[in-house]
Amino acid sequence: MPAPALAPDSVGVVTPRRQFFEGPLPLASGAQLSGYELVYETYGELDASRSNAVLVCHALNASHHVAGLHEGDAGSVGWWDNMVGPGKPLDTRRFFVIGVNNLGSCFGSTGPMSINPATGLRYGPDFPVITVEDWVHAQARLADVLGIERFAAVMGGSLGGMQALAWSILYPARVAHCIAVASTPKLSAQNIAFNEVARRAIITDPEFHGGRFYDHGVVPRRGLQVARMIGHITYLSDDVMAERFGRMRRGRAEGDGYDFGFEVEFEIESYLRYQGEKFSTYFDANTYLLITRALDYFDPAAVHGGDLAAALAPASAQFLIASFTTDWRFSPARSREIVQALLANRRAVTYAEIDAPHGHDAFLLDDPQYHALLRSYFERVAATLA
Amino acid sequence: MPAPALAPDSVGVVTPRRQFFEGPLPLASGAQLSGYELVYETYGELDASRSNAVLVCHALNASHHVAGLHEGDAGSVGWWDNMVGPGKPLDTRRFFVIGVNNLGSCFGSTGPMSINPATGLRYGPDFPVITVEDWVHAQARLADVLGIERFAAVMGGSLGGMQALAWSILYPARVAHCIAVASTPKLSAQNIAFNEVARRAIITDPEFHGGRFYDHGVVPRRGLQVARMIGHITYLSDDVMAERFGRMRRGRAEGDGYDFGFEVEFEIESYLRYQGEKFSTYFDANTYLLITRALDYFDPAAVHGGDLAAALAPASAQFLIASFTTDWRFSPARSREIVQALLANRRAVTYAEIDAPHGHDAFLLDDPQYHALLRSYFERVAATLA
Repeated sequence: MPAPALAPDSVGVVTPRRQFFEGPLPLASGAQLSGYELVYETYGELDASRSNAVLVCHALNASHHVAGLHEGDAGSVGWWDNMVGPGKPLDTRRFFVIGVNNLGSCFGSTGPMSINPATGLRYGPDFPVITVEDWVHAQARLADVLGIERFAAVMGGSLGGMQALAWSILYPARVAHCIAVASTPKLSAQNIAFNEVARRAIITDPEFHGGRFYDHGVVPRRGLQVARMIGHITYLSDDVMAERFGRMRRGRAEGDGYDFGFEVEFEIESYLRYQGEKFSTYFDANTYLLITRALDYFDPAAVHGGDLAAALAPASAQFLIASFTTDWRFSPARSREIVQALLANRRAVTYAEIDAPHGHDAFLLDDPQYHALLRSYFERVAATLA
Repeated sequence: MPAPALAPDSVGVVTPRRQFFEGPLPLASGAQLSGYELVYETYGELDASRSNAVLVCHALNASHHVAGLHEGDAGSVGWWDNMVGPGKPLDTRRFFVIGVNNLGSCFGSTGPMSINPATGLRYGPDFPVITVEDWVHAQARLADVLGIERFAAVMGGSLGGMQALAWSILYPARVAHCIAVASTPKLSAQNIAFNEVARRAIITDPEFHGGRFYDHGVVPRRGLQVARMIGHITYLSDDVMAERFGRMRRGRAEGDGYDFGFEVEFEIESYLRYQGEKFSTYFDANTYLLITRALDYFDPAAVHGGDLAAALAPASAQFLIASFTTDWRFSPARSREIVQALLANRRAVTYAEIDAPHGHDAFLLDDPQYHALLRSYFERVAATLA
């Protein structure tokens, strides 16, 4: 079957690139990575003044593959393809967009599945715990290699938004605009609780083997499935779950009686199992632990006695903060905390609370109001370019 | 160490009783239980006119042991001891209170751990799937044995409240007052989703052995732990979790740096692991599956095309419906659905939405407003007694 014709507003077929870094990368934990590789993609053209670069940071299970397709794989649409492309809100005719797979992830950058040069074996559980700030420092080195002194914008949703915020604090001179969607200045106890249950499901899976499952030729897929199912519940709003699944059952009408068993019966069960099974075939269990820990640990205000305004004081970017009304993972209240802290510093900040039914997942969807907001914000950014 | 002196308002030391039923119990699934046992406790005295009996129905992990202590076990305080006793809201000086362990549970009534007379082996996964309505029919037979024609009240919280509602529909002449706290007329897709993830954690635990773990001398404790951890997240409000645990860490102050590992670090992790581990030492995995399925299936309106008012039309009891503002498992909106359906039937209904921070768990706690409400309601019930 021939691949479908690419939509005119797609960036088309893209090829990931790799960049090896030789010098050691000091990490927040005190550990060092001596030599590491980052996989990245770019879309659009860097302009002569190198001023039109936008860094897109990814969340838990995404990657450097933000937009377009990979050669010969019609199913490989980038995770934010509806946002990034010619004529899309982040318009690749104006901007040079970069997606980077984070350190510790499992899509090509150095992570637990990589060979530890010190042992000649896969890192597995020896891969150091990474923080959001570590990612930002690694991304900054990639920016150096690409010759980008200052980003027109650093943007991301959820965990990606945390990276954008960290960029604005750690490298204020290198970020003109910071865009954080559906994000939070730190995880709540409930957020950490969900992460912890997911981690326990993975760690207590006998096929996890203390993180050395690669050596046993197995994958802790049961743990990964449960972890992903928990995640999906928190990504969707109660409303959208009710609308999409309600109490619908497979092959039965309401009032039709039950199966009286524990196999898939309700549509929501089918959906969650499918999502869990799919995830367990491609995602690395050690990466899941690392990235959820990075989420738990993100809290730039902690070293300022909890004062978020003090934490954000170094930032000089202009900010776009956006949240979704039905997001109960990182609710609008969490975004408003960021806005308040920015206003306390008299920073330029645009805030939008978007009335969307989809919960946390909304940041990945092409809600018209949301996309119109991003489009007009990027038009404003483009207008400031040389 | 001597047992602590019993508080003057305790029902004191109580002894569970057993009742064997010989006749078959037809179940909603079409299966039958031929001969079964119910374990129950009673507190207070049945009056001469047999009109002062109150049935207390339990939720997922509770039992017949509602109040008081078991002989020689100072730690065995009943699960609703703050509600039931002399001088307590449900005053055992006025009422004869009955707690029954539900069929399929694991605290003495016939369930998956019991011997199947047909095989001489434990039922395990062959124990039939039970519904809320099945429980009510079994409880009605116990009431027959005890000579109770009509209950002054049938009450319960959460799943217990569903049983109270089912009583009012199935045996209208036998229920003077129906009290359903923190309950719902049916589970939402999100509620079912959480149940399903918990079940998957249990079923995919290699030590579950298709429900025949008893024969292998093991317990799927990892699955039970994860299931219980998920449950606990849904029982607590986000607010109370933030207040009790926040981002506090064990042995570290805020801003003190992290452990950079996956052991218990945040207090919320410690709490959840402790709850999970404790639960896995005493709760039966097959029972967990059965009871969560009974929750999923409860939907008295389903056979009426979703019309809850039609489902409740047979009920002739007076109703007390109560909910808690921060309960996100069965939110006040779910209780209001019940109230609306009762009002559509012109039933006498008292509704209270209690401003309590504790989430779903609040129904088990002694919030003063909540207990005052129940106390005054039971005073009203008592005033109608002979």
